[in-house]
Amino acid sequence: MKDFFIADAAKFDNDTVTSYFALSSLSVREKKQGGQYLALTLTDKTGTMEARMWDEIADVLANCSEGCYVKVQGQISKYQGKFQITLQKMRNAAESEIDPADYLPATLFDVEEMWAELRGYVSQFTNHDLKRLVFAFLDDGAIASAYRTAPAAKRLHHAWLGGLLEHVVTLVRVCLATAPFYPEVNPDLLVTGAILHDIGKTRELHWKNSFGYTLEGQLIGHINIAQGMLLEKVKELSPFPEKLRVLVEHMILSHHGKYEFGSPKLPMTAEALLLNVLDDLEAKMQVLRNEFAAAEASGKSPGEMTEWVRSMDRPLLDSRSYLKDE
Amino acid sequence: MKDFFIADAAKFDNDTVTSYFALSSLSVREKKQGGQYLALTLTDKTGTMEARMWDEIADVLANCSEGCYVKVQGQISKYQGKFQITLQKMRNAAESEIDPADYLPATLFDVEEMWAELRGYVSQFTNHDLKRLVFAFLDDGAIASAYRTAPAAKRLHHAWLGGLLEHVVTLVRVCLATAPFYPEVNPDLLVTGAILHDIGKTRELHWKNSFGYTLEGQLIGHINIAQGMLLEKVKELSPFPEKLRVLVEHMILSHHGKYEFGSPKLPMTAEALLLNVLDDLEAKMQVLRNEFAAAEASGKSPGEMTEWVRSMDRPLLDSRSYLKDE
Amino acid sequence: MKDFFIADAAKFDNDTVTSYFALSSLSVREKKQGGQYLALTLTDKTGTMEARMWDEIADVLANCSEGCYVKVQGQISKYQGKFQITLQKMRNAAESEIDPADYLPATLFDVEEMWAELRGYVSQFTNHDLKRLVFAFLDDGAIASAYRTAPAAKRLHHAWLGGLLEHVVTLVRVCLATAPFYPEVNPDLLVTGAILHDIGKTRELHWKNSFGYTLEGQLIGHINIAQGMLLEKVKELSPFPEKLRVLVEHMILSHHGKYEFGSPKLPMTAEALLLNVLDDLEAKMQVLRNEFAAAEASGKSPGEMTEWVRSMDRPLLDSRSYLKDE
Amino acid sequence: MKDFFIADAAKFDNDTVTSYFALSSLSVREKKQGGQYLALTLTDKTGTMEARMWDEIADVLANCSEGCYVKVQGQISKYQGKFQITLQKMRNAAESEIDPADYLPATLFDVEEMWAELRGYVSQFTNHDLKRLVFAFLDDGAIASAYRTAPAAKRLHHAWLGGLLEHVVTLVRVCLATAPFYPEVNPDLLVTGAILHDIGKTRELHWKNSFGYTLEGQLIGHINIAQGMLLEKVKELSPFPEKLRVLVEHMILSHHGKYEFGSPKLPMTAEALLLNVLDDLEAKMQVLRNEFAAAEASGKSPGEMTEWVRSMDRPLLDSRSYLKDE
Amino acid sequence: MKDFFIADAAKFDNDTVTSYFALSSLSVREKKQGGQYLALTLTDKTGTMEARMWDEIADVLANCSEGCYVKVQGQISKYQGKFQITLQKMRNAAESEIDPADYLPATLFDVEEMWAELRGYVSQFTNHDLKRLVFAFLDDGAIASAYRTAPAAKRLHHAWLGGLLEHVVTLVRVCLATAPFYPEVNPDLLVTGAILHDIGKTRELHWKNSFGYTLEGQLIGHINIAQGMLLEKVKELSPFPEKLRVLVEHMILSHHGKYEFGSPKLPMTAEALLLNVLDDLEAKMQVLRNEFAAAEASGKSPGEMTEWVRSMDRPLLDSRSYLKDE
Amino acid sequence: MKDFFIADAAKFDNDTVTSYFALSSLSVREKKQGGQYLALTLTDKTGTMEARMWDEIADVLANCSEGCYVKVQGQISKYQGKFQITLQKMRNAAESEIDPADYLPATLFDVEEMWAELRGYVSQFTNHDLKRLVFAFLDDGAIASAYRTAPAAKRLHHAWLGGLLEHVVTLVRVCLATAPFYPEVNPDLLVTGAILHDIGKTRELHWKNSFGYTLEGQLIGHINIAQGMLLEKVKELSPFPEKLRVLVEHMILSHHGKYEFGSPKLPMTAEALLLNVLDDLEAKMQVLRNEFAAAEASGKSPGEMTEWVRSMDRPLLDSRSYLKDE
Repeated sequence: MKDFFIADAAKFDNDTVTSYFALSSLSVREKKQGGQYLALTLTDKTGTMEARMWDEIADVLANCSEGCYVKVQGQISKYQGKFQITLQKMRNAAESEIDPADYLPATLFDVEEMWAELRGYVSQFTNHDLKRLVFAFLDDGAIASAYRTAPAAKRLHHAWLGGLLEHVVTLVRVCLATAPFYPEVNPDLLVTGAILHDIGKTRELHWKNSFGYTLEGQLIGHINIAQGMLLEKVKELSPFPEKLRVLVEHMILSHHGKYEFGSPKLPMTAEALLLNVLDDLEAKMQVLRNEFAAAEASGKSPGEMTEWVRSMDRPLLDSRSYLKDE
Repeated sequence: MKDFFIADAAKFDNDTVTSYFALSSLSVREKKQGGQYLALTLTDKTGTMEARMWDEIADVLANCSEGCYVKVQGQISKYQGKFQITLQKMRNAAESEIDPADYLPATLFDVEEMWAELRGYVSQFTNHDLKRLVFAFLDDGAIASAYRTAPAAKRLHHAWLGGLLEHVVTLVRVCLATAPFYPEVNPDLLVTGAILHDIGKTRELHWKNSFGYTLEGQLIGHINIAQGMLLEKVKELSPFPEKLRVLVEHMILSHHGKYEFGSPKLPMTAEALLLNVLDDLEAKMQVLRNEFAAAEASGKSPGEMTEWVRSMDRPLLDSRSYLKDE
Repeated sequence: MKDFFIADAAKFDNDTVTSYFALSSLSVREKKQGGQYLALTLTDKTGTMEARMWDEIADVLANCSEGCYVKVQGQISKYQGKFQITLQKMRNAAESEIDPADYLPATLFDVEEMWAELRGYVSQFTNHDLKRLVFAFLDDGAIASAYRTAPAAKRLHHAWLGGLLEHVVTLVRVCLATAPFYPEVNPDLLVTGAILHDIGKTRELHWKNSFGYTLEGQLIGHINIAQGMLLEKVKELSPFPEKLRVLVEHMILSHHGKYEFGSPKLPMTAEALLLNVLDDLEAKMQVLRNEFAAAEASGKSPGEMTEWVRSMDRPLLDSRSYLKDE
Repeated sequence: MKDFFIADAAKFDNDTVTSYFALSSLSVREKKQGGQYLALTLTDKTGTMEARMWDEIADVLANCSEGCYVKVQGQISKYQGKFQITLQKMRNAAESEIDPADYLPATLFDVEEMWAELRGYVSQFTNHDLKRLVFAFLDDGAIASAYRTAPAAKRLHHAWLGGLLEHVVTLVRVCLATAPFYPEVNPDLLVTGAILHDIGKTRELHWKNSFGYTLEGQLIGHINIAQGMLLEKVKELSPFPEKLRVLVEHMILSHHGKYEFGSPKLPMTAEALLLNVLDDLEAKMQVLRNEFAAAEASGKSPGEMTEWVRSMDRPLLDSRSYLKDE
Repeated sequence: MKDFFIADAAKFDNDTVTSYFALSSLSVREKKQGGQYLALTLTDKTGTMEARMWDEIADVLANCSEGCYVKVQGQISKYQGKFQITLQKMRNAAESEIDPADYLPATLFDVEEMWAELRGYVSQFTNHDLKRLVFAFLDDGAIASAYRTAPAAKRLHHAWLGGLLEHVVTLVRVCLATAPFYPEVNPDLLVTGAILHDIGKTRELHWKNSFGYTLEGQLIGHINIAQGMLLEKVKELSPFPEKLRVLVEHMILSHHGKYEFGSPKLPMTAEALLLNVLDDLEAKMQVLRNEFAAAEASGKSPGEMTEWVRSMDRPLLDSRSYLKDE
Repeated sequence: MKDFFIADAAKFDNDTVTSYFALSSLSVREKKQGGQYLALTLTDKTGTMEARMWDEIADVLANCSEGCYVKVQGQISKYQGKFQITLQKMRNAAESEIDPADYLPATLFDVEEMWAELRGYVSQFTNHDLKRLVFAFLDDGAIASAYRTAPAAKRLHHAWLGGLLEHVVTLVRVCLATAPFYPEVNPDLLVTGAILHDIGKTRELHWKNSFGYTLEGQLIGHINIAQGMLLEKVKELSPFPEKLRVLVEHMILSHHGKYEFGSPKLPMTAEALLLNVLDDLEAKMQVLRNEFAAAEASGKSPGEMTEWVRSMDRPLLDSRSYLKDE
């Protein structure tokens, strides 16, 4: 198992370490004195580190390639202010040696607790059909396993293992806090939508070694994958009220709120509208959180504007420094 | 059965006729001398006619309402240059008395011939799985029946019974003529897309008495209804090649070509792109055909521009009058 | 005082009544037999009624005009299914005879209770400066009086007397329910924004006889009027923390969320973003409520789609009829 | 004449070669030991190669500059995995030594054959005036020469010598295959539009050494250049039917289909609409072809999505790998 | 000749008049007592009046139709507050009896003076070629005649006879006032653009009986018609400097400033940019002038906002009433 | 005081100089032989120069940082065709040693003359209230001082000290030249708008060491800052005509002309419209001027197109080379 992490490199300056990494990039370069060497990038969930391998590279070239997990032995040193590692050995890692959770960023929250919280909300539904429907998903082993692991995005908000679940749990909480103010909104239906709206991400994204889109993800997309999953579960639960199926299906299809964001329908019910608004809010608030953290990490002082945030087309400001004194 | 049609009113001026109509509108008005009378609009596939009923309206009010089929007896006369009918009797028509085809406009082509032509194309597929798939739809009695009757739209292009089939047959012909110029395009896959892309319209629209949207049509839409129908058939045909399913599904989802036209995905394969372009072309050419006919009907001379065509944001011109002389 | 309301016309069929109305329209028409008569529209908070005055119209023409309050005497009768009134007398009403609340629709909630609730929230602020600031508005007699009476819009959402206060109170409640989920959000600042964001509507709109825009409202707009009101209050409270002033001012300016909706700045703080989202949600939910009521009033059955809703570019559906059975 | 091409460098590793190239870039750099050397880029139709010249650079600097053709002598060697050449000699090439076709990419099809095919279509026109018109262009020596050589674009689709002709010939074929399905379309007029629509590119672009825009190309554009060329030919053919001139002119002006693509008029005739749709289709299909080739060249496996394609705002997929097995 | 104008109807109440009009609409209606009568609309440059013809309508129906000039005799009377005329006689007017200027609104300025002013500006050009070019247009009898008569638009700004010339003269004045502040601008080139930019309107529009678009106007448009006229004149003046031709042509093509306004090129020179801005300003200021006049005519008081102005997507305010007191 | 400027480096090749600079960037790098050195960028109003400091860098690191002014001593030399400086000494400069005008680009016009010209225009106002209002700004010491120094932008047009004043003076001149052609325009009101419209830039931007946005600038923006400044001055001048205040306020708010450019209101008066158009023209003409200069500086020949100009989405052409010969 992996016991050295990249974030700890400073503690091992000039030491030789043996550990596992995901191999993010590999290129062959010419040595000035003739012959070839390898320039590599190694990754784990705590960061990224450059590596060089100067000798005996033939076996590596034959067996390792970008995207693999590797076991390496090498010496840590500092170059131009950054740590890198000079490798003596490198080989492919066996699947049994690897816990993918070591190589990808993951939620800071407890997955079991979040899962239990989510199930708790469903068990309190008064609408029997919706309760049957949502539990058909949560009790489906394959779906549940993916749901608890998937990130919520390739990048931007919640792009980490467990990110999907974390996003949904927060969203359900806000839904439950908001629904009482709108008598047009049925809380069971709203929460059903909140739990199922992004479930297609379990097939749109893959999180093996890195986060990326599947072929189905690119050609079909999570909205329509989720719709297909819903129809399949409804068929299994048959008979299921037709109109209720349409209402849930509509929430899934319309949850991006605009055609240009990939929703083929605009929200037309109170629940669909509220889900769209709160889902968008959740995502944007997470962007703010990430940007405030990034600004702090880059040395900005608390009361300064962040850099331009491309996804929101504006810079942001964390107002807390101006308010906390009182 | 219905033997008087509104288009023939001139032949019956001042005669009393007995016939069936769809009741498009009904309103109660005050007579100047006290009491009430009925102002009605009657419709069949050849047109629309105003009606008045001056006496004994109580039974009618109790039993008939807008959208029903009615049997009436009354006298034809001309008023302000238009024919209308003064009713002596009116009652609800029994379902057995009505052939809906008499009340809604219908394709001018032979449905059986078009259907046979379509099946003929599929029987020549070289791809076995796609052949299985399309026939699973065409051999499904309920689907086939609706497919052969449905209009292609509520208004605009092909808004008549059999319009969907007419649209698809023409589209398949153009697909087959065009595909050979593009080696990237698989003709079987393209024709599969052409036949299935609008199949959701059989549930998006209803054509009972008039053309309109179903609740599912408005909340889900024909693109996503078709996707659901595809997934159901694929499941029945299991095992079916996963990638092939994704390619067909992608064509359905992307056939409107733009997010703002309700497609949740843009066309990413050669077949999806070609289907989108030719489907759009077919619809626009039909708009031209309709507008040229409407201009002629309104008394425009052959070489004149049409009125402004809202759906295309421009006026149109039928160039034929300037070309036919040679 | 007014004791006959238009909604009660049926109870007075063929009776002569004496009452006050707002005169919405007045036109002079030619009698067939020569001479002139008046065609009028009378309005009160319960509806609108046509009126005719056949004789002795010279005094009326000299003294009354559209937009005035009038006192009339006349006889109620039914014409083409609607009640109208044939006037014997009509004169301008004195200001002392009129309670404007009788002529414009008004909130169904208790203004005093809402006002007390709003003040209660402010009194619990922990931020002393924000508390000082908001109370400077709420304790300003002229502002408070307008705030408690103003509609929130000329038409669309909350277009009635007290609508502004009703809108704000609901918004504050949702703000307080939502804020705890976002540690980046300071609740006092958020509620300050919620209370002040639309305060410019007290000068953008007028609600004398009817709802409309003031000249300042059209040329400056409520966003910038509010900004001016804020700067004036801040000056009175001097010294007031400069940064805090900028944060509040920013919330006011950005609360429409997009340039094309008239906000000269996009929300850049967590509070501004949340205020924008919840304010928009509140307005949209009110549109749904109005449309559901309008659909019911027009005779739609509970599970039907509403007509096309122009301001949202879609039809809507009240989902409750499909959910209430369980 | 040129007998060494860059694509063959591997066969000449460590040899000294003498050949001609287009000089794409030239910069003077400081040697570490003092003095200057030249860093150059050499180009021919098969690719691009870096070059260095260490000594006797004064003559070169005085006589050669970017964009010229040069004759060089130098030794091929490999550096960081790529071939480059160390020059002993370099001088300007005389015009007589250069066949521009060696330096720019060119169509893979036979220009004479395509030209004959195009003329064949025109000779079968039944409309005498359109036949006269198109031959007036094709028989004009200067225009014909440019038409057979011009690329269809600076970059993107058909950006190679003969690309314009290749694009037009394919487009005419598809036009002729499609026209029979639309009785509103006159095939002679359609093909006239297909042959003339891009003829302005012969003056919008230049293809001397590299592909680029002329001043007239940037300020006027190929659409309006073509319009001017049409008016000139029509004048020469006088008398020519006025209305027919307007119909052809309209096709040229509207062939981009949208204002934002530089068409000052939207297509209003059946021929203009069909030309616009098929021209756009041809260009997009060529983009797919290029992108599939580029993906393969970059080492993607057949069933993978391409990279993001900027001009189409999406990634693409070559579906053939999933279909060819059957 | 015409000596009664519609604007003078009040002076002829109950009199019988004989005069000429343009026949804007004609419809046949059923008399209640049987038989038919004519409902007509008559127009001259001062307005529009309803007419009725009760007897002897057969000759009229055989000879007159919408769009013709007619001579009528009839009696003026007032009906529902408006004047109308009851006709005894009506016949087609001979061309010799009609001065079109009596039937269409016309400029209030002196055409000869404006024309002389325009020629005066050109005679002071220091650039000989531009002087030759512009005079080639102004000295062309057919063009000059149309230029002095054409309206500048079908509706909106300067929609009256002579409107084009009026628009151009004002524009040239502003150009000459503004050019000195921008040394990048050549005044002769700018004025050349101002005089020629809209010259295509002489063929885009027709002004026979009413204002409308020609077929060439709709399919080609005034921008591209003007370009064709320029190329023809340049050919006549040959040799003419090629680059200068391109600069003038560019100004014509780009003067609408945006693709979506029908300009196929954006302004890229200082003169093209300035021409676009000032042309747009002139048109907008004329809209303001029209709207202020319309508001006054409709009874608005001087300091009130106008109604919503659709072409500018806002209401307008004439500020003068708030400024003139001092 | 600063007596060496970067633009003069060539005259000091290999000399040791002592001077002051703004420190634009500072980074610490590893020497190959161990230890660290500094890579720096120094700036003054004439340009930018790279610097290296090899020894005794500890004091510098402790005291200097990016954005500071520094005093340095070092030797000029040429490296890869550019001058750089090898530092022996560097320390923070005292504020008294620095004239910021030496470090930021500045207007080439005389500030005193421009200021006097501006005041001259105001002194000729016939509207007493507007004269009072504008002088209240120009006579306010703090505002006047900032007004005379501020740039008009961070980058793009007039991005230099005094740029705001330069922009406004030119704008006022064009306003005064144009206003006489539009009787709807009050010249005093127009010039008031021209002088005050951008006055918020004195607080939106800062110009200390470099040009940038203030926090208030980003959260509020110069349009709304100016509005606040106006309301404050109006209050000081009380009583001031309310309507006049609204008209001036409206000009400030609407001067960007479109919502998406940050104006919360569209121009609704003749003065607001003219100000918007001429302000935009001024800015664009300045962009042309800058781009023509940049093209010349980069070695383009006079008649060539510039590179693509991003802010205008097109390339530009200086037409003068084609016109000056005559």
